Amino acid sequence: MQIAVIGSGVEWAADAAEVGRLLAERGCVVVCGGLGEVMEASARGAKEAGGTTVGILPGESARDANRWIDFAVATGTGHARNLAVVASCEAAVAVGGRWGTAAEISYARVLGRPVVVLGQGPGIEGEGIEHASTPAEAVELALGLAGAR
Amino acid sequence: MQIAVIGSGVEWAADAAEVGRLLAERGCVVVCGGLGEVMEASARGAKEAGGTTVGILPGESARDANRWIDFAVATGTGHARNLAVVASCEAAVAVGGRWGTAAEISYARVLGRPVVVLGQGPGIEGEGIEHASTPAEAVELALGLAGAR
Amino acid sequence: MQIAVIGSGVEWAADAAEVGRLLAERGCVVVCGGLGEVMEASARGAKEAGGTTVGILPGESARDANRWIDFAVATGTGHARNLAVVASCEAAVAVGGRWGTAAEISYARVLGRPVVVLGQGPGIEGEGIEHASTPAEAVELALGLAGAR
Amino acid sequence: MQIAVIGSGVEWAADAAEVGRLLAERGCVVVCGGLGEVMEASARGAKEAGGTTVGILPGESARDANRWIDFAVATGTGHARNLAVVASCEAAVAVGGRWGTAAEISYARVLGRPVVVLGQGPGIEGEGIEHASTPAEAVELALGLAGAR
Repeated sequence: MQIAVIGSGVEWAADAAEVGRLLAERGCVVVCGGLGEVMEASARGAKEAGGTTVGILPGESARDANRWIDFAVATGTGHARNLAVVASCEAAVAVGGRWGTAAEISYARVLGRPVVVLGQGPGIEGEGIEHASTPAEAVELALGLAGAR
Repeated sequence: MQIAVIGSGVEWAADAAEVGRLLAERGCVVVCGGLGEVMEASARGAKEAGGTTVGILPGESARDANRWIDFAVATGTGHARNLAVVASCEAAVAVGGRWGTAAEISYARVLGRPVVVLGQGPGIEGEGIEHASTPAEAVELALGLAGAR
Repeated sequence: MQIAVIGSGVEWAADAAEVGRLLAERGCVVVCGGLGEVMEASARGAKEAGGTTVGILPGESARDANRWIDFAVATGTGHARNLAVVASCEAAVAVGGRWGTAAEISYARVLGRPVVVLGQGPGIEGEGIEHASTPAEAVELALGLAGAR
Repeated sequence: MQIAVIGSGVEWAADAAEVGRLLAERGCVVVCGGLGEVMEASARGAKEAGGTTVGILPGESARDANRWIDFAVATGTGHARNLAVVASCEAAVAVGGRWGTAAEISYARVLGRPVVVLGQGPGIEGEGIEHASTPAEAVELALGLAGAR
């Protein structure tokens, strides 16, 4: 099962790595934006736990992916890749993040994907957006919601 | 100056038409998603006031545009057209709306475009998102913010 | 009726301007990629004949458009804007051009839009791609094919 | 190394499967459009040889992928996913195909990726497009060109 980890902010790296690790231990493929900060940390966490990672990039080359990405898709469509990240998952976990993350959360909800926000999140609320206070809680919640689809 | 009117919900049609009319009276080109509800009402309001409208569509044919659209761009990229709508404006006015509108507001902020929300909006808040309680207030606020860019 | 002018190459500017002028004289809206060379020349030709132009840009700001564009749509999706250019027209005239133009011609044919190539073109042939040897011939051919859709 | 297999046409399934098999045997990840015909056959060939496959889909759900896809990216951007397919590879092998394949070949060349066409191809020629007469020849040529980048 493909689960997206979205978000940004270097201060969220430890939480993102823990989310990635827990998803990998549960057998999930971690899908992310393939670049730095939360994207890189979640992929690193997944890889250190023996998991598999897919990075969906805004640019025109798979070589742009961070070192923890196993399979990179270069969409070439800039910020429109945010749509691809959430369309490619069964549920999304948001860790930190600002407007780009808000766009991903919005698109996830357009497409009916459940979203779990770890911490305060980027200021977007509504049906289908749940909150968690720890990485473990976020992962359990996301997997439960994904399984219920 | 191109100003986007975004949103959805038939109950917002009168407000959207008024926003479109006021923008046209101020000499603005109304940019919208080119389909129904708020998109159609804002375009109708603009046209009835002698204005000009641009519709940016998700599909693959300009013929999909509502009858009030002067110039239609068919992006062919589905929900990724939401990015194009706000990238093509100097400021955006949101009238009603749900997750698709939240994606547009998020992208507007990613790109540094000011957003004015008429009424409660789709549940997204943050720096650069202002609120207005009437169409006239929304249009004045949007033009002021656009002019300050 | 919206007709796209596609292509590239400064050596094709005079032909592109003539195509733009003739399309405007026939009452068509000239749709193009909004940037330089053939895009700019075709828009200039249309404007000098009193026509109207729509520029569909790869970047994230309508301000990137050349000075002859009346209405600019910034798709924000890079080369994927080539799809939007041809999806937004009833027929396309190609003037010069290389691989980007070949992508546009290919997409035009995916979508069933007729294409008229002025001169040798970018090396792509098939059903629905016609050739013309003068701007006047290209415009007549394109309008005839567009009208037959 | 990620190599794209592009094309269409059920009559090309055996060749596409052979290309997929040979790429997998050479240790390459097969990237394709994730749907039927050549896309499915190339993925099947790769999987039957123990390889790994990535499918890049036009729609909004990874569940649309054919059964031979290991990792599916749903771009949500329709035909603009053709850009993503070739942006995500080091070289592309075209098997059969029509206009959609021509768009992919064109984009590959926009982005500087080498293309090897097995058989006649979709009618697009130019620098950086090579021809092969057998799957084995196509794979060798593609890997040689990819390695030279």
